[in-house]
Amino acid sequence: MLSTHPATADQALVRRLNTALIMDWLRRRGALSRAGLSAATGLNRSTVSSVIHDLLEEHLVREVGLQPSEGGRPGMLLELSPEGGCAVGVEIGVDFVSVVLTDFIAQVLWRKRIPSDPKDRQGIIVSRTEDLVQEALSIGTERGLRILGVGLGVPGLVDLQQGTLVFAPNLGWSDVPFRQMWTERFDAPVFVENEANAAALGEYYFGLARNVQTLVYLSAGVGLGGGIILNGRLFRGSSGYAGEVGHMTVDPNGELCGCGKRGCWETVVGPRAIVRRVRQALESGAESQIGTLVENDLSHIDVGVVVEAAQAGDLVAQTALEEIGVHLGIGISNLVNTFNPEMVVLGGALSLASPFLLPVVEETVREHALEQPREILRIAASAHGAEACVMGAIALVVDEILREPLL
Amino acid sequence: MLSTHPATADQALVRRLNTALIMDWLRRRGALSRAGLSAATGLNRSTVSSVIHDLLEEHLVREVGLQPSEGGRPGMLLELSPEGGCAVGVEIGVDFVSVVLTDFIAQVLWRKRIPSDPKDRQGIIVSRTEDLVQEALSIGTERGLRILGVGLGVPGLVDLQQGTLVFAPNLGWSDVPFRQMWTERFDAPVFVENEANAAALGEYYFGLARNVQTLVYLSAGVGLGGGIILNGRLFRGSSGYAGEVGHMTVDPNGELCGCGKRGCWETVVGPRAIVRRVRQALESGAESQIGTLVENDLSHIDVGVVVEAAQAGDLVAQTALEEIGVHLGIGISNLVNTFNPEMVVLGGALSLASPFLLPVVEETVREHALEQPREILRIAASAHGAEACVMGAIALVVDEILREPLL
Repeated sequence: MLSTHPATADQALVRRLNTALIMDWLRRRGALSRAGLSAATGLNRSTVSSVIHDLLEEHLVREVGLQPSEGGRPGMLLELSPEGGCAVGVEIGVDFVSVVLTDFIAQVLWRKRIPSDPKDRQGIIVSRTEDLVQEALSIGTERGLRILGVGLGVPGLVDLQQGTLVFAPNLGWSDVPFRQMWTERFDAPVFVENEANAAALGEYYFGLARNVQTLVYLSAGVGLGGGIILNGRLFRGSSGYAGEVGHMTVDPNGELCGCGKRGCWETVVGPRAIVRRVRQALESGAESQIGTLVENDLSHIDVGVVVEAAQAGDLVAQTALEEIGVHLGIGISNLVNTFNPEMVVLGGALSLASPFLLPVVEETVREHALEQPREILRIAASAHGAEACVMGAIALVVDEILREPLL
Repeated sequence: MLSTHPATADQALVRRLNTALIMDWLRRRGALSRAGLSAATGLNRSTVSSVIHDLLEEHLVREVGLQPSEGGRPGMLLELSPEGGCAVGVEIGVDFVSVVLTDFIAQVLWRKRIPSDPKDRQGIIVSRTEDLVQEALSIGTERGLRILGVGLGVPGLVDLQQGTLVFAPNLGWSDVPFRQMWTERFDAPVFVENEANAAALGEYYFGLARNVQTLVYLSAGVGLGGGIILNGRLFRGSSGYAGEVGHMTVDPNGELCGCGKRGCWETVVGPRAIVRRVRQALESGAESQIGTLVENDLSHIDVGVVVEAAQAGDLVAQTALEEIGVHLGIGISNLVNTFNPEMVVLGGALSLASPFLLPVVEETVREHALEQPREILRIAASAHGAEACVMGAIALVVDEILREPLL
């Protein structure tokens, strides 16, 4: 076997590429035999057998029974194994912390979500998060699973080289060296990413955008973030800051944005914009049941309330969402003309409101995007809901292993 | 040597990857020895020697003398060879056709540019173009160079799979199957691309964006096109239509664009917008020497005239370009936030006006783009001027060879 004698640089590289290729086919296609893998990858049978041998030893792959025979000797089917290890996914949001533990095939073994107050000191929030990660790791270890890594999604800009949160405007945090802090503490690889980027990767690996090679993910939390998958990989730009589509200027004379500019897309389609529209309508005396829903305290209006009212037929709520849908559609048209993606996914608060947004978004994109890139396009709501980012954090760990196999 | 016995699928793949890697290093770094290539690529010496052996036989690489000795045996330096073959680059513009013949290292051996009237029938323009290509190919063949391919840049949307011009609004052409028409006729591989995409690739291979891995190229001809290089490759989107950034909506209530939408970026920064601004100023009685330059026929104003006047200190011209610069800067900020590119290149008419545009563009981008992606950014005018696209057409041929070596 190749792996038993020292490989040259070339052989080691080829080995890694071949291993990644085989694992990726198993991830995408589920159970395949060695012969099936050989046909799918174009690798010869002995190479496939040798790589599979090592993957079985590492418990990254398992045998799941014989293929139904179609004449000839039936092959043993293989798939990625839950026993390959466990991963911890973490999301530090503006007002909550969420942690999940999954096995190698992203089945959730444990989850916890705690509220947090953005006014709390950074040290307190980080320390609570670390306790949760520790709890997750202990559960994984008790189950006899090796720790594959810890992934973290944060609502801000990330220095990928360093694994540092550079700036999170809505948390008011800057320069938090998470990878450095946590790699030693947890004795595991640590991956830090912007939350929209992580969510996009989660959608690609485990969501409805599975195997969609070119994907724009829009994540509406407090602001509006974007995660972009190009050719099956997260696109991070030349220094890790790509995808800040929420700050695309759609109206140079528009409203002031948190970033200091006027008329950013985020100011007309983000959750704040939804709430503002509804509030303005109520303040100008429009009839609506929203006032009752929030017991006449308009400061309690959020996207959830607006969607609830819209579902009950409330016209103020429905009109606000339709208006948002138009602006969303215009910005999405820009992204369609720019990226020619197969899919645009609405995540976060947008996925919550998607039954009302999608029809208007689709109509607007039909009017505003060029015809040719539109032909291939699907627009959909994220299937992950509130867990999009934390499952994306798991995807960061899985992505690293599938791209750069452990072997 | 590997190449003397039949390779398995794996070996052939590795061979192609290694060959591409070695040629790319030689392209980027110029003369390197076998030992230098081994150090640069991480490939072992025997692999490098074997690949170089074949490249020398194919005349794709040549030896250029001994390395200055630093003790030890001096190595023979290698570089890409002009004798590797010749390529023909073609641009069909709205009112001209341009053709160049170059050797394998993109040195121009012959060029011709002829005006054409957009009112001419498509058949006439195509037939004149074919005559020029034939002329170029004959010259290449006379010089004993094998034909590497014909690259074509067109001002429209291209179906890459088919090599078909799908739609060129400003020519009024649709569904012209150039690859099919020309592959047989010229007995050479034919590559068809959108002109801004081609120009971007030319900038990456032969221009000032050499080795810039993430690049946005803006090409202002009649409209405003974009070409995007990501991770050193032309980004084409999921069906080949990416990069239509000129149709990003910057003002939903703005002017009607040729694409049928309102307020596209192109309507406020394209050459037509420059001319319109100047004309409006003149019509409202502003003092300017532009009237004299066009002998009081305002229909003769073009970007060249405006730049000429601006250079002579004309305030109307300078003001118009400054206003364009602001709108250009806002749109570029969107692209910076989205792509986090190392470089944005202004091509076509924009490069002509760049002395007046660049300072305003840079100031606007400082105000409008996020701080972090801005740090790495350079904004520059294309060095290729009017030949950006036709040299880009050469780059299409070279790109194919460097990615998928002939061997």
